[in-house]
Amino acid sequence: MNPDTICAIATAQGGAVGMIRVSGPDAITITDILFVPAQKEKRFKEKSPYTLTFGRIHHGEEIIDEVLVSLFRSPHSYTGENSTEITCHGSPYIMQQIMQLLIANGCRMARPGEYTQRAFLNGKMDLSQAEAVADLIASSSAATHRLAMNQMRGGFSKDLNDLRSRLLDFTSMIELELDFSEEDVEFANRNEFSLLAAQIESIISRLVHSFSVGNAIKNGIPVALIGETNAGKSTLLNVLLNEEKAIVSNIHGTTRDAVEDTVNLGGINFRFIDTAGIRETNDEIENLGIERTFQKLAQAEIALWIIDATTARKQLEELSGKIFSHREGKQFILVFNKTDLLPKHQKEELISFLPRYTNKNTGYIFISARQRISTDELQQMLINRTHLPTVTRNDVIVTNIRHYEALTHALESIRRVQESLHTNISDDLLSQDIRECIFYLGEIVGKVTNEMVLENIFGRFCIGK
Amino acid sequence: MNPDTICAIATAQGGAVGMIRVSGPDAITITDILFVPAQKEKRFKEKSPYTLTFGRIHHGEEIIDEVLVSLFRSPHSYTGENSTEITCHGSPYIMQQIMQLLIANGCRMARPGEYTQRAFLNGKMDLSQAEAVADLIASSSAATHRLAMNQMRGGFSKDLNDLRSRLLDFTSMIELELDFSEEDVEFANRNEFSLLAAQIESIISRLVHSFSVGNAIKNGIPVALIGETNAGKSTLLNVLLNEEKAIVSNIHGTTRDAVEDTVNLGGINFRFIDTAGIRETNDEIENLGIERTFQKLAQAEIALWIIDATTARKQLEELSGKIFSHREGKQFILVFNKTDLLPKHQKEELISFLPRYTNKNTGYIFISARQRISTDELQQMLINRTHLPTVTRNDVIVTNIRHYEALTHALESIRRVQESLHTNISDDLLSQDIRECIFYLGEIVGKVTNEMVLENIFGRFCIGK
Repeated sequence: MNPDTICAIATAQGGAVGMIRVSGPDAITITDILFVPAQKEKRFKEKSPYTLTFGRIHHGEEIIDEVLVSLFRSPHSYTGENSTEITCHGSPYIMQQIMQLLIANGCRMARPGEYTQRAFLNGKMDLSQAEAVADLIASSSAATHRLAMNQMRGGFSKDLNDLRSRLLDFTSMIELELDFSEEDVEFANRNEFSLLAAQIESIISRLVHSFSVGNAIKNGIPVALIGETNAGKSTLLNVLLNEEKAIVSNIHGTTRDAVEDTVNLGGINFRFIDTAGIRETNDEIENLGIERTFQKLAQAEIALWIIDATTARKQLEELSGKIFSHREGKQFILVFNKTDLLPKHQKEELISFLPRYTNKNTGYIFISARQRISTDELQQMLINRTHLPTVTRNDVIVTNIRHYEALTHALESIRRVQESLHTNISDDLLSQDIRECIFYLGEIVGKVTNEMVLENIFGRFCIGK
Repeated sequence: MNPDTICAIATAQGGAVGMIRVSGPDAITITDILFVPAQKEKRFKEKSPYTLTFGRIHHGEEIIDEVLVSLFRSPHSYTGENSTEITCHGSPYIMQQIMQLLIANGCRMARPGEYTQRAFLNGKMDLSQAEAVADLIASSSAATHRLAMNQMRGGFSKDLNDLRSRLLDFTSMIELELDFSEEDVEFANRNEFSLLAAQIESIISRLVHSFSVGNAIKNGIPVALIGETNAGKSTLLNVLLNEEKAIVSNIHGTTRDAVEDTVNLGGINFRFIDTAGIRETNDEIENLGIERTFQKLAQAEIALWIIDATTARKQLEELSGKIFSHREGKQFILVFNKTDLLPKHQKEELISFLPRYTNKNTGYIFISARQRISTDELQQMLINRTHLPTVTRNDVIVTNIRHYEALTHALESIRRVQESLHTNISDDLLSQDIRECIFYLGEIVGKVTNEMVLENIFGRFCIGK
């Protein structure tokens, strides 16, 4: 049990109501010092759990606020510890005063995610469920909400745990064989084990593949904007981001790695990746920037190649070789910008040349970002070219990069295990690969963990959760 | 009892935790439709009041969130009605989903302040206490908090109510005398009544006078910035407002009449009033603007006259007559701006001329707003020239313009009553003045009221309160 009692403001500033959470061994007794129930026959600390008490927070003679206080006793609380929740008027001044009183009486300020971290450490949820709490708070659409809720309800944790313990059984038997190595006994049935390994490979492989969908739903479909610097990329980006009222806000405490510009179009989140301008150059530094542009392009599912329509032929001829070498597996849209400046005959001439550059996965559109001509149609093209499967209840989809990485490692190990089974490699090497697979599966649910991993996970939560 | 059941999100967006409030006759039964307690032996609607229940909000098969729900039964709740409070994860998506479910099942969205309005209408608090709730939420300093808390605890309501009912007793006796007018009886002891009137006059008069302090504490000390357009008023205003991290935020739902730029310096709120530039002109329209400047100047407690130091002599000579005619009862600071452009000998010459313009209440300072030279010293001068009494617990101070106006009217009527008592005016006129005083006193606590007044008061609250 953690000896500190922690407190934090759990609500955002500016509402009618504010809530302060207190958790730890002294949560109830510290709250009892500040809080005087309106009905005085019983002190707060003598109240039953899961009750609400109306009364006043006092600082000496001064009344800070009239509040409602909830009481929870260990282990029946979110954190598993003694807890109280003080619901007060939403004044920043009042909330600060209550926090100061709590701290003066022995609480300390909670770190981000510390409540959920304690819930994890006290066995109220596994690590993957704890991570889902942050995703749930950040969820901004039906799909992200459903994924987070599935994960919070257990998601693939239970399956992985089962597989992990079956692997553990096998590896202990194989290790037992090692102890009796001179006697050539076989405790672990190799055929049975082969079947289990195949099953594990299949499940993990499916989970690993689900990540591209999960990541797109959670963080948005990655859309790269490439093209020459003066083609109007920035203007277009601003149009795409600002015109929409549905800009996905960057809520503090989400688990996204970097804040990128995300916008919701037709119910789908798109994450726009701006890139450095591309052109043929011998300048080494500039070439480095272009190198990075192509790295970003590689991460995108959809690429918008912004082309100044007035010099389109030249750009297509000079750059299409380089750019189209990254066309594999992506949707491409050639966006001819500044169309308002393009004479009609030039446009017709350009169109007649386009078939050599387009194909099933490469379309084109004529727009003017500045004049906002056809930018709505471009948005519609983005929506049409996106193929996100619908997430249904109970769908098991990996959305977390940490899980993805652990699963990728687990997949590598289990495949090595499968190989070893065919090639009759030595049992101690086999056992080592199994142990590795067990380790990575355990990492996801938090069976194996360390301070740094926990800090990394919970540090991204918001304060008060 | 209001037949509608209302719901609203009571917390601001972006926190770890969100709260939705439901109030009205069907609050508990509607919540019971969506909410399935984790422990199923009892339905939610069968729970005892002032308890918390953990469980899930469902929409058909879909789980929207795991929540804690509080239950209150009429009349023992904030509004006096049946109420529930749903504490969920702070995801905007989740809160919207729960709101939609509540509405689909028969709730309607609450109007701003509707919870507190219902509390007032159900006799849980008087009107002046209800108004204090909004002030309490908006309170951003110890002084504003204390004033709001005093008012919420009853403040002068009880005193006014007592005086009002004593007035009522007297006036009914006087009106009784009118019925027996031909018999020349005296039911109401005129001496006693004279004492009461004097007492009422003294109390109301004190309250009316407290408003200038209350208003300064609540809305900030009014500081007018006047001077020629090119003197650097806007630059200085920006420096005064932006340099400070402690800018008082404009919280939605406060009762301030207009959003003005307020900043907290040394624990005191200053409200800066920018004005149109002053100069000698024959242009009629421009003169109208200058007229307004002087009106704003009249409201200020402190005036900063911003003067371009490089042409200071000319400005002082041309404008000081006009401007100093408004010097009465104010603190004045001559702010010589653009000092960085002023040669040393000119500055010395200027200083030698200043004694004819300054006095005990008129100081001066040399600054450069753009270079931020001596702007800190200017802030310190503002703080030093402010004389706000310290507010103590139980101080009765009027902060509300509606109360101030009602009290002013009540004061006028009671003074007429006092006069009538001396001049032996007819009893029916006396009675009319007493009735008027009673009316205005009743207006403050909400004994007499109408739809428009209520709408005006509660429409300024935030949603969810």
